[in-house]
Amino acid sequence: MELLKEYNPYLEYRDGELFIEGVSLKELAQTFGTPLYVYSSNFIKERFEAYRKAFPDALICYAVKANFNPHLVKLLGELGAGADIVSGGELYLAKKAGIPPERIVYAGVGKTEKELTDAVDSEILMFNVESRQELDVLNEIAGKLGKKARIAIRVNPDVDPKTHPYIATGMQKSKFGVDIREAQKEYEYASKLENLEIVGIHCHIGSQILDISPYREAVEKVVSLYESLTQKGFDIKYLDIGGGLGIKYKPEDKEPAPQDLADLLKDLLENVKAKIILEPGRSIMGNAGILITQVQFLKDKGSKHFIIVDAGMNDLIRPSIYNAYHHIIPVETKERKKVVADIVGPICETGDFLALDREIEEVQRGEYLAVLSAGAYGFAMSSHYNMRPRAAEVLVENGSVKLIRKRENYDYIVEPSLDI
Amino acid sequence: MELLKEYNPYLEYRDGELFIEGVSLKELAQTFGTPLYVYSSNFIKERFEAYRKAFPDALICYAVKANFNPHLVKLLGELGAGADIVSGGELYLAKKAGIPPERIVYAGVGKTEKELTDAVDSEILMFNVESRQELDVLNEIAGKLGKKARIAIRVNPDVDPKTHPYIATGMQKSKFGVDIREAQKEYEYASKLENLEIVGIHCHIGSQILDISPYREAVEKVVSLYESLTQKGFDIKYLDIGGGLGIKYKPEDKEPAPQDLADLLKDLLENVKAKIILEPGRSIMGNAGILITQVQFLKDKGSKHFIIVDAGMNDLIRPSIYNAYHHIIPVETKERKKVVADIVGPICETGDFLALDREIEEVQRGEYLAVLSAGAYGFAMSSHYNMRPRAAEVLVENGSVKLIRKRENYDYIVEPSLDI
Repeated sequence: MELLKEYNPYLEYRDGELFIEGVSLKELAQTFGTPLYVYSSNFIKERFEAYRKAFPDALICYAVKANFNPHLVKLLGELGAGADIVSGGELYLAKKAGIPPERIVYAGVGKTEKELTDAVDSEILMFNVESRQELDVLNEIAGKLGKKARIAIRVNPDVDPKTHPYIATGMQKSKFGVDIREAQKEYEYASKLENLEIVGIHCHIGSQILDISPYREAVEKVVSLYESLTQKGFDIKYLDIGGGLGIKYKPEDKEPAPQDLADLLKDLLENVKAKIILEPGRSIMGNAGILITQVQFLKDKGSKHFIIVDAGMNDLIRPSIYNAYHHIIPVETKERKKVVADIVGPICETGDFLALDREIEEVQRGEYLAVLSAGAYGFAMSSHYNMRPRAAEVLVENGSVKLIRKRENYDYIVEPSLDI
Repeated sequence: MELLKEYNPYLEYRDGELFIEGVSLKELAQTFGTPLYVYSSNFIKERFEAYRKAFPDALICYAVKANFNPHLVKLLGELGAGADIVSGGELYLAKKAGIPPERIVYAGVGKTEKELTDAVDSEILMFNVESRQELDVLNEIAGKLGKKARIAIRVNPDVDPKTHPYIATGMQKSKFGVDIREAQKEYEYASKLENLEIVGIHCHIGSQILDISPYREAVEKVVSLYESLTQKGFDIKYLDIGGGLGIKYKPEDKEPAPQDLADLLKDLLENVKAKIILEPGRSIMGNAGILITQVQFLKDKGSKHFIIVDAGMNDLIRPSIYNAYHHIIPVETKERKKVVADIVGPICETGDFLALDREIEEVQRGEYLAVLSAGAYGFAMSSHYNMRPRAAEVLVENGSVKLIRKRENYDYIVEPSLDI
């Protein structure tokens, strides 16, 4: 089962039963119910270490949006990670999880006044500013608080990351950043705003990038901007080159390692004195996580075979919204017939599917399936659609198990609705 | 402003300021904050009455999945609506909102053992059964509880509703129902299961159907099945023809009225003695609701103009997932230049947009926009993506305002995550 190890080295079949970090996924499902998100602690640690080893002097800010479970954020914080946040909620969470403000960077095109105020007040490391108007508003807020806000300007290198259009963020027509050709003008402008302190340059070209060559193109442009700003006397302390390394979703995917990225950029970054900041999210969390779901019904309609499971698009929306592939395997594997089936959820729309026309062992009602690569943008995008409580989450490590989010109940969903 | 009335007759500009049922949307935004869902009580009542008038003898079961706010479900229940539910959560909610079990029908391809048990125990009117295996499981559960479960079989008339593929549900290749050509065999099978009582036929061809002609084709097939089953001695008491009437999203959309559907089906249903059940959701709730959002920043990138607002895909995912059009208008209208802009949210992905290349008045930072037709599949599909608390919801009626769901806070989001 070498393929499994390529997803997550802690994943293995023992006598036909799937284990992660020495824990039986069937037992987890029976103990905590399904759908259930299961995360592998050692995988997270190793991925973080791989970044640290590849970029020993860099600040590695975990992109909280990939998975905002406080226990996972805390785990990364204890390893030394900072946080790449995109909202006031993520600021609250990062601080709650013990990540010191001096390791927090804050991007996002629509920061509200309240969010900016909280972040200035928290004295975070750096705001990655996305527009001229944000510069003005941030300057005003910092002034009111009698503080200086440290900023980078997010520049848009206009390279094509060759990923899904929804998660390509560094192209000229996207809402993010400012055109790199306009960047100097924006830095000049920012330098005149007295409550801002220019400390960095930020860029982020997209997400789920398997062919890393566009990074080189982007970082070349950013380094050239760095040199030019430095020459003009700007003190650029941080070069934030974003995140976006892709992960293995399909069996044939070859995922790049942090070291591959380091090697690709080595000569470019050699003469850069600024501290490098990285913002990995998916590449740390994606293959740490598995979604366990139980087969409810089997159904044939003519030649079409359906496996209906208890995880829906409210639990994992990626297949529906991005047409994303997730590898799905039975928790108990046997020598048996394979079928080609649509693996679908219980939600009442045709867009609710986990996989279409997928070859899989002929599993039966009551069996469990493991949806791989579900650690990032899985629970984080989950909803109460169809009034469905969201899944529980557990963290496993070397045979031990910890519930890190309990299963929601109906009362929790309606609680904010006040009395009727 | 005749166009506005076509969306919702209670919507109007007064001296350039947008009101709904006599309430200023600007004042609502200032009082409750944004993003904010606002629902119009009279619109909901009138839409329900339109169904009742068009189908005076029918049971009209509101499709709870469109919007599960308990206050809205209760409002409909008080008018006499039943509930079309698709999960245990919706069963809980319908009962909590005071809808009696004898007005509840339960569809869905993946009902769990727990959900089926709760529903049998509640003695709901009818299970709309979607597969042979579900018949067996339901029979077994009813047996254990010493009860009879009343059932319809959901049949799949294989007509093309000409809507978005994700919400077309009545086609042969979809996961829903059983092929209508196989239906008799399934009814024969069900009749041998002693804890089931066959009482109905169910079909549902899809959602957001503007051209209603496919209904005729579907109902023709269903009536023919009804006649044939009746001849064979089955006592079919209910003919559930589903929901799916489309609503006006685009300015040029012409939405069908319940009466149009009644007229279309009149001769087909004339000799049917069974009670008709209808399952409207979107057509009652869609244009009752508006999402109010505040402009955060304006941004130009070359010729591209962006209006960045505080409502994201976590608040309203329809544009992103269905490429859906929502009409967007300023809460304060003025004589001013118009621009063509992408109206985008604060979420960190390019897929986070409310409208692309949309012509709109040149609104400024701090102003409010009204996103129309947001009452159905708006809040219901909302999430905490990017750790964003979900919007508040208010219900307005003849000038009065009621908060029906408070804005979430950060603590609410992390509460199930247990202590860290």
